[in-house]
Amino acid sequence: MSKFWSPFVKDLVPYVPGEQPKLNNLVKLNTNENPYGPSPKAIAAMQAEINDDLRLYPDPNGDRLKNAVADYYGVQPAQVFVGNGSDEVLAHAFHGLFQHGKPLLFPDISYSFYPVYCGLYGIAFDAVPLDDQFQIRPQDYAKPNGGIIFPNPNAPTGCVLALDAIEQILQASPDSVVLVDEAYIDFGGETAISLVDRYPNLLVAQTLSKSRSLAGLRVGFAVGHPDLIEALERIKNSFNSYPLDRAAIAGAAAAFEDKAYFQQTCQAVIDSREKLVAEMTALGFDVLPSGANFIFARHPQKDAAALAAGLREQSVIVRHFNKPRIAQFLRITIGNPEQNQALVEALKRL
Amino acid sequence: MSKFWSPFVKDLVPYVPGEQPKLNNLVKLNTNENPYGPSPKAIAAMQAEINDDLRLYPDPNGDRLKNAVADYYGVQPAQVFVGNGSDEVLAHAFHGLFQHGKPLLFPDISYSFYPVYCGLYGIAFDAVPLDDQFQIRPQDYAKPNGGIIFPNPNAPTGCVLALDAIEQILQASPDSVVLVDEAYIDFGGETAISLVDRYPNLLVAQTLSKSRSLAGLRVGFAVGHPDLIEALERIKNSFNSYPLDRAAIAGAAAAFEDKAYFQQTCQAVIDSREKLVAEMTALGFDVLPSGANFIFARHPQKDAAALAAGLREQSVIVRHFNKPRIAQFLRITIGNPEQNQALVEALKRL
Repeated sequence: MSKFWSPFVKDLVPYVPGEQPKLNNLVKLNTNENPYGPSPKAIAAMQAEINDDLRLYPDPNGDRLKNAVADYYGVQPAQVFVGNGSDEVLAHAFHGLFQHGKPLLFPDISYSFYPVYCGLYGIAFDAVPLDDQFQIRPQDYAKPNGGIIFPNPNAPTGCVLALDAIEQILQASPDSVVLVDEAYIDFGGETAISLVDRYPNLLVAQTLSKSRSLAGLRVGFAVGHPDLIEALERIKNSFNSYPLDRAAIAGAAAAFEDKAYFQQTCQAVIDSREKLVAEMTALGFDVLPSGANFIFARHPQKDAAALAAGLREQSVIVRHFNKPRIAQFLRITIGNPEQNQALVEALKRL
Repeated sequence: MSKFWSPFVKDLVPYVPGEQPKLNNLVKLNTNENPYGPSPKAIAAMQAEINDDLRLYPDPNGDRLKNAVADYYGVQPAQVFVGNGSDEVLAHAFHGLFQHGKPLLFPDISYSFYPVYCGLYGIAFDAVPLDDQFQIRPQDYAKPNGGIIFPNPNAPTGCVLALDAIEQILQASPDSVVLVDEAYIDFGGETAISLVDRYPNLLVAQTLSKSRSLAGLRVGFAVGHPDLIEALERIKNSFNSYPLDRAAIAGAAAAFEDKAYFQQTCQAVIDSREKLVAEMTALGFDVLPSGANFIFARHPQKDAAALAAGLREQSVIVRHFNKPRIAQFLRITIGNPEQNQALVEALKRL
C-alpha cells in the first residue's frame, strides 16, 4: 500500500478474467468466445472506418449504434445506453443505480465481477444461495434490498430463468432496480427487453462479445426506462465522453443489422452444445441444463482440478473455479465441431 | 431525479465535449483534432486486426502498447498504464489517487473535466487562479492539498510550464500525487516523463488523440512510479478488464513506433501555428503564447461570442467558453494551411 493511494484501493480485490494465452494451437474453451468470426458485414463496416478520419473524435453518443439496437428490439433510442463492453455498462450501473445503503442482492454462484464492483463503489451486498439444483428461486429475492442483479442465463452455471420468474422478482421489489445481465441470452434464453415498457425498474444489459462474435471490439449496451438510461449517461459523461471508437460504433451497428448471419451462427453453437452435452453425458459427466454458449459439468468420480490440468497438458484450456459449491465443476465454452471433438477425445484419455 | 438513482447522480454536472457536428464541409477548429491523418503504419496495423480474430478478447493488459510507450520514453513497462483515452486514465487517477480528504488543487482556468471528476468521486477541490498573464505560478500550489493536477501546456490557454517550475511543485508537495496532463505536450512543451524516476509522486498522462492523430481510436496512457501505476491497474481491473480493443492496441503501438511521421506532422502543425499567430496578430488579436495545437486569442474591440457566431455563419467552428475571465477569448485549433487561411479570411469579414 502506497501513501499516495486513495484509502479504498488497498482493499480492492480485482476481477481475474479468463486467461488469454499468447500461444497458438490451443483449443481455447475458457473465456466463452464464439467459435465463429463476426458478421462479414461488420468486418466491412469496421474496415471502412480505418482511414484518415480517425484523426477526428467519434460520435460521443454512438447514435448509429443506439439506433441499430433500438430498431432490433423495437424500443426508442432514449431507452438504449452503449458502452465499452458490458463490463463498463455494468460498472456505471453499479455506481449510478445501486448505492442505496441497503444491500445489493445477487446469486452466490454468479458472475464474479459483481462483488468486485461492490468493492469499487462501496456497495454492501448479500449473496443469495442458488437452490440445490443451482437454480435462482425468485422468492429468495423478496426481501429488503438496494438493487438486484443476476445473469440470465446465469454464469457459470448456464441455467436459464424464465420471464415469469423475472416478473416475480420485478414485482416484489418495485423500488429497486433489477438488472438482468443477458450476456448469453441469444443461445437459449428469452430476453427481458420485452418487459422494459412495463417495468420502470428493469434494466437489461447485453454484450456483443458472445453471440455477435466481437469480444475483441469491446461493445456492450443496456436497455431500460429513459430515467435509468439518464443515470448511466450522467455517469458516462462525467467519466469519459467517447468510450466507443469509430470502428466499434460502425462494426457493432452492422452486426445488429445482419440478422441472418447472427441467427445462423447462434444456431450452429446451440447445435454443437446439444451434441457436446450428449457426448459428455455418455462419458459419465453431469451437465447442468445450459442456455448459454458454455456448459457447466462435473464428473462423479474425477476431480475437476485434475481434469482441467489434464486437459491443459493436451492443449485444451477450460475454466475451473476453486470456489465453494462449484470446485468440482468445469466451465467449458462451446467451440466449433473440431474443437469440441478434440475436447471429448482429450477427456477420454483422462 | 428518479428514486432509482444513487443519490450523488442528481448533483452531477457532466462534462460537455466540443460539438461533433454531423455535417460535412465545415472548417472544424473546435476540438483540437490534428489536421493530418494518423501514421500510415498505424492505419496498416489497425487494418490487420479487422478480421475473424475479433471474436477473441484482446490482451487485457495491452502489453504491446505498454512496451511501445516504454521503449519510446526509455522507461519500464511497469511504469506505464494504458486506457480508453486519457479521459479514462484521468478518471481512474482521480478515483485511485486523489481521495484524501484535503482539497485537490488545479488552475481556475483549465480542463473543465477536472471538477466533473471531483463530482463523480466526491473529491473537494480548490481552483488556484492563474496570474494576470494566464500563467501557472508554482508557489501558489505550495499549500496543504490532497493532490495537484494541471495540463501542460495548459488548456484552453496553450501556455507551457517549464520543467523547473514543475519540479518546484513536486518538491513542495512530496506527500501528494502531482498529475501533469500532457495532452498537448508534443506541440511545444517538454515532457515531465524525464522526471518520473526522481519523483515517486509524479504521474504524467498523455493521449494519442492529438499529436498522434488518433482521436477516433480512444487511447491514452500514464507514466509514473510502479506504485502509482498499481493503483490505476487495481481500479481498472475492478472496472473493466479489457478497455482497449484489438485495433486500438495495435494501432496505438504502431503510431509510437513511427517516429518519422510523428515528428513531421507535429512540425507541420507548429509551423502553421506560428504563421496563424502572426496573421491574427496582424488583424489586431492578442494571442497567448501557445505550445499546443490550438491558440487562445482575444480581440480588444470585438466580442468573442459575436466572433464565434460570425465564424459559424461562415462554416468555421471554433470554441468559445462563456466563463469568468475567459469569456472574451476564442480557442482555435490549428488546422491545415487551407483551413487556417479560411479562418483568417472569415475573420477579416467580421
